[in-house]
Amino acid sequence: MKVGIVGASGYSGEVLVKLLLAHPRVTLSAVTSRTHAGKPLAAVIPAVRGADRGLKFTDSDPAALAATDIDLFFLALPHGAAATYAKALVPAGKRVIDLSADFRIADLATYTKYYGEHHAPELLPSARFVLPELTAPAWKTEAKLIAAPGCYPTSLLVPLVPLLKAGVISREHIVANSYSGVSGAGKKAEETYLFCERAESIKAYGLVKHRHLAEVEEQLALHTGAKTVIQFNPHLAPMRRGIATTITVPAAAGATIDSLYAAWRAAYAGRPFVQILNSGETPDTAHTVGTNRVDMSAVHDPRTNNFVITVAEDNLVKGASGQAVQIMNLWCGFEETAGLV
Amino acid sequence: MKVGIVGASGYSGEVLVKLLLAHPRVTLSAVTSRTHAGKPLAAVIPAVRGADRGLKFTDSDPAALAATDIDLFFLALPHGAAATYAKALVPAGKRVIDLSADFRIADLATYTKYYGEHHAPELLPSARFVLPELTAPAWKTEAKLIAAPGCYPTSLLVPLVPLLKAGVISREHIVANSYSGVSGAGKKAEETYLFCERAESIKAYGLVKHRHLAEVEEQLALHTGAKTVIQFNPHLAPMRRGIATTITVPAAAGATIDSLYAAWRAAYAGRPFVQILNSGETPDTAHTVGTNRVDMSAVHDPRTNNFVITVAEDNLVKGASGQAVQIMNLWCGFEETAGLV
Amino acid sequence: MKVGIVGASGYSGEVLVKLLLAHPRVTLSAVTSRTHAGKPLAAVIPAVRGADRGLKFTDSDPAALAATDIDLFFLALPHGAAATYAKALVPAGKRVIDLSADFRIADLATYTKYYGEHHAPELLPSARFVLPELTAPAWKTEAKLIAAPGCYPTSLLVPLVPLLKAGVISREHIVANSYSGVSGAGKKAEETYLFCERAESIKAYGLVKHRHLAEVEEQLALHTGAKTVIQFNPHLAPMRRGIATTITVPAAAGATIDSLYAAWRAAYAGRPFVQILNSGETPDTAHTVGTNRVDMSAVHDPRTNNFVITVAEDNLVKGASGQAVQIMNLWCGFEETAGLV
Amino acid sequence: MKVGIVGASGYSGEVLVKLLLAHPRVTLSAVTSRTHAGKPLAAVIPAVRGADRGLKFTDSDPAALAATDIDLFFLALPHGAAATYAKALVPAGKRVIDLSADFRIADLATYTKYYGEHHAPELLPSARFVLPELTAPAWKTEAKLIAAPGCYPTSLLVPLVPLLKAGVISREHIVANSYSGVSGAGKKAEETYLFCERAESIKAYGLVKHRHLAEVEEQLALHTGAKTVIQFNPHLAPMRRGIATTITVPAAAGATIDSLYAAWRAAYAGRPFVQILNSGETPDTAHTVGTNRVDMSAVHDPRTNNFVITVAEDNLVKGASGQAVQIMNLWCGFEETAGLV
Repeated sequence: MKVGIVGASGYSGEVLVKLLLAHPRVTLSAVTSRTHAGKPLAAVIPAVRGADRGLKFTDSDPAALAATDIDLFFLALPHGAAATYAKALVPAGKRVIDLSADFRIADLATYTKYYGEHHAPELLPSARFVLPELTAPAWKTEAKLIAAPGCYPTSLLVPLVPLLKAGVISREHIVANSYSGVSGAGKKAEETYLFCERAESIKAYGLVKHRHLAEVEEQLALHTGAKTVIQFNPHLAPMRRGIATTITVPAAAGATIDSLYAAWRAAYAGRPFVQILNSGETPDTAHTVGTNRVDMSAVHDPRTNNFVITVAEDNLVKGASGQAVQIMNLWCGFEETAGLV
Repeated sequence: MKVGIVGASGYSGEVLVKLLLAHPRVTLSAVTSRTHAGKPLAAVIPAVRGADRGLKFTDSDPAALAATDIDLFFLALPHGAAATYAKALVPAGKRVIDLSADFRIADLATYTKYYGEHHAPELLPSARFVLPELTAPAWKTEAKLIAAPGCYPTSLLVPLVPLLKAGVISREHIVANSYSGVSGAGKKAEETYLFCERAESIKAYGLVKHRHLAEVEEQLALHTGAKTVIQFNPHLAPMRRGIATTITVPAAAGATIDSLYAAWRAAYAGRPFVQILNSGETPDTAHTVGTNRVDMSAVHDPRTNNFVITVAEDNLVKGASGQAVQIMNLWCGFEETAGLV
Repeated sequence: MKVGIVGASGYSGEVLVKLLLAHPRVTLSAVTSRTHAGKPLAAVIPAVRGADRGLKFTDSDPAALAATDIDLFFLALPHGAAATYAKALVPAGKRVIDLSADFRIADLATYTKYYGEHHAPELLPSARFVLPELTAPAWKTEAKLIAAPGCYPTSLLVPLVPLLKAGVISREHIVANSYSGVSGAGKKAEETYLFCERAESIKAYGLVKHRHLAEVEEQLALHTGAKTVIQFNPHLAPMRRGIATTITVPAAAGATIDSLYAAWRAAYAGRPFVQILNSGETPDTAHTVGTNRVDMSAVHDPRTNNFVITVAEDNLVKGASGQAVQIMNLWCGFEETAGLV
Repeated sequence: MKVGIVGASGYSGEVLVKLLLAHPRVTLSAVTSRTHAGKPLAAVIPAVRGADRGLKFTDSDPAALAATDIDLFFLALPHGAAATYAKALVPAGKRVIDLSADFRIADLATYTKYYGEHHAPELLPSARFVLPELTAPAWKTEAKLIAAPGCYPTSLLVPLVPLLKAGVISREHIVANSYSGVSGAGKKAEETYLFCERAESIKAYGLVKHRHLAEVEEQLALHTGAKTVIQFNPHLAPMRRGIATTITVPAAAGATIDSLYAAWRAAYAGRPFVQILNSGETPDTAHTVGTNRVDMSAVHDPRTNNFVITVAEDNLVKGASGQAVQIMNLWCGFEETAGLV
């Protein structure tokens, strides 16, 4: 099976290139970049020197891509740009997995409020937001266009959905603090992302209405049948990759740490990419970097009757490109872990 | 005026050495260390090469120190060890500023619960916990022995006390997430603090009953007249210095972001070491490193009716040694900022 | 084919575990550690959570290991300890690839001078130092015990051997400066390797007679037929992984940058793990981390008539565990790149 | 005495601001920046919040600055721009200390070769390159315009000049490798200086004819009376500040490590900012950060008869702004260390 990546020169694109070059079931046949068209893949992504099979960046004309024999495209583009490509590729019968926000939000009004005009609203009905561990399996046959979840949302939805569904936690006073590696901001040549500005520095940003809330709250409502508003505080941390999310939430009446773990274990039994750590053991972003895992654990604080849930993942793998590959694996009938361990 | 540092070889000790060597009003006359006795100061703290005025580490016999002509001692020792020195120095008429937890908690039972046996409980009545911006000025004449606040508590008490006193925030559902540079753990040769373990890594630790809560909650009760329980989640971040604390707390009925800022401005008008940033501007640990400041700001989230307060400080300066020098300055009648800018 | 790792809990051991768990041709059947015997693999190496196939650390009795049905053992042990295992395993017919220095030096007197007593000198004649790109292929059938080269030596021998053999560079005034990530020091709980000591710090160490010189100079003599003494200056750099080596060497009479590149291209044509960059493009350690590559390039300085050669590799992969896997691949008739891309 | 900084928003400018705000003998009266004119100092340099004495950035018209009552100006501008200011300020009787390269090179042809057209060649005769520990004291009365040395040159000239003058080292085969923190590149919003590109990365750049060689070789010739060509290999290291330079040079006939140290001790006796470490002890950039020191040591390698000299400094302090303040101190008759310890 042939796959292509549209917009392969950012940080997610680079990780996707590496995963697909090493994937046992697909052949990476096209990588596009407006800026780098014509250059060898390894000239832009030196980490794949000697392993790039002679691939070169090509220009990224949507119609031309639609005319290729490539079966599936990953869109690793900024929000807004992805819709334009989906518009050409989906009608041409290509499978499309979009890593941007363009198709993550089913409700057009919500999308518009957070992101502005949508460039392909007619595709929204056939698009599916797929977080493989949570989305009901019907998506595999229904979807023509899949939106892969964002990095922060993955670290929120994986721990929270089963607990809200099981009634183990309160729907109110949910407070999530997330700390992201700098790659989460993308490869942007701005002063604030310079080494000398970010090294040895932690700061909050995007308070109080971060865009990712749109998909988080829509998904929480879809999965749990009720509106849930969360306080989400994103921060930048002095590391390249990784997201550490700490969620404080009141225990529901009668809930215990055992009922919390029971809900998690029921939801994620046998799922290779969700690792539930013992209460008292805390996940560490460094242990997840390069993997497609979400590691998580929880403790109960008898003083406050809160649960404190700690979560770690690699923002570029489970938070972006690895998850997209996992989606492809399931969609195309490959082993879920193919190319991901 | 002559000052000495007992236990000068840790990270706080090193910062204290630098501050006192450059201080315009005092002379650093003794630095002690059991491990390094006999070595030149600069052999252990190479950062002061050429500026150490020939000082050598001496052994740290409490009685011998009590017999010197040194006026004031800083104790930069582990919890437990400090009490032993205070016991010899205070009765000898020396002023003592303790950077450990030994005299931070007025209530002996609370101390014992968190730290174990107290080695000089008889000194507790004459000891004062002094956070200069918050503690009523009577301490300057009453105290014989001063406990400097811990790093995390400073980042919690400075923002919270005026808001609780002004009734601007709820006493319930206070959630504080703190991210500390690795120096917060001290200079401990343990695997978990190795460069390769901590670089590019964030993880929570010490959940859910961190020792620093004892002093935080005692102080909140003393200052605000009522018990306040907070959820405090400490983490290690991949940087050497700095604490970033993010506090989420429901707004009290009728409170606005303006009333929050008004309470802060009233409390800290003219205080050089508390910097109140505009709402929407977030403090950055990197901007506070090397300074004795707490930088803080807040936003109101209309979706949740929470305030989100963000705070940054240098854990070794305002969170430890700088604060101790500030206390000395005020206690001895020097300018508050002497040696601190 | 079954393989085992003796001493799998250090940094090289961890990388070896990951490579072998994902290797398509072998099954990792045993991991040993005196300290961690009995613990699940993922309890000690959390990065392999969910991918450790239930492996547990076992104790590491040499005789017991010799009695297993494991075909090949990797020794990831400190210098000195490895010989003891080789002594039991080699006579039992096991293939052994040693990542320590114990069998890197053919000359016993040289070994003793740098490392002290040798615990299995009788095995030296059947041992081979194998740097796959340089060692003549007869080793594949002759060797019973293979010494994988050290991290610094790989970064020196790969660029220098073809140039000395081709007579392109001087044998005198060779100056090599190497900068290693902190993992090069191993997982040692010593103050000097703490995060707060190494972050934002560069320093030289081990001047002027670093142990790795023994194998470098022996190999240079073996390959090029003449004694070559080099000035080797190792340093620690504030990063976890990677070695950057910069070599300055006078050009031989008549040599040009073209003749240098011709010698390299002749030596390494078709070798996947040596990447020769254009003159003027410099290798970057970050681009090699996680790969089994040596990236290198050179420039000629007309002012000094020196060549300046710059080299980058991952000290834990091409400098240790990846190279050991590459050796296994070639020894056992697998594809050279199996499990390494 | 009133001083001003022209171009205060870069990394050197920021350090200069901090040093001058805390300096006991001068008043910082003007800070200019074309980009930031009108903004409070602390809005651009948040590290000085609460300590900026109400200063605002002003525009930087040369004639307007010449008309102020400010006595001395520091120029912290890019090469080329500095000359334009000097042209207005020097004739107006202002003392000028320039941190750029514009007046470091006495020979106009050399300047032009490395930097292009010079915008104020008429000032070259009255300009002096001053490295306080090396330049003969007559500059204090002769100079109208002082060029402060660059960061790399300081780390080369301080160790080399006394050794060349004493005939302790060879003039040939001098190889210097320097590793600079990323701030050495300035505050440039370019992809290559992003956190994610530089963290965990070492690479050489600017091979083989780095601009700083022009001033190094001119100074070596001036001080030692003979042309000396050195191989200089600059690199970027994953830290914010600091330069680590390692120099390999053949010992002169008969020279020993003792004669090397004797030459250094004679040259730098009583100089507070040159610290000579014992042979075998290596300087560490982390120990010099925030100080105005050069730390250095040397070893002799009997195998090669080379000396290996290791040097560390803070590129922004002794390599730029601290040195400029030291020059001001000496020029204006202040204590050499005023504001620098």
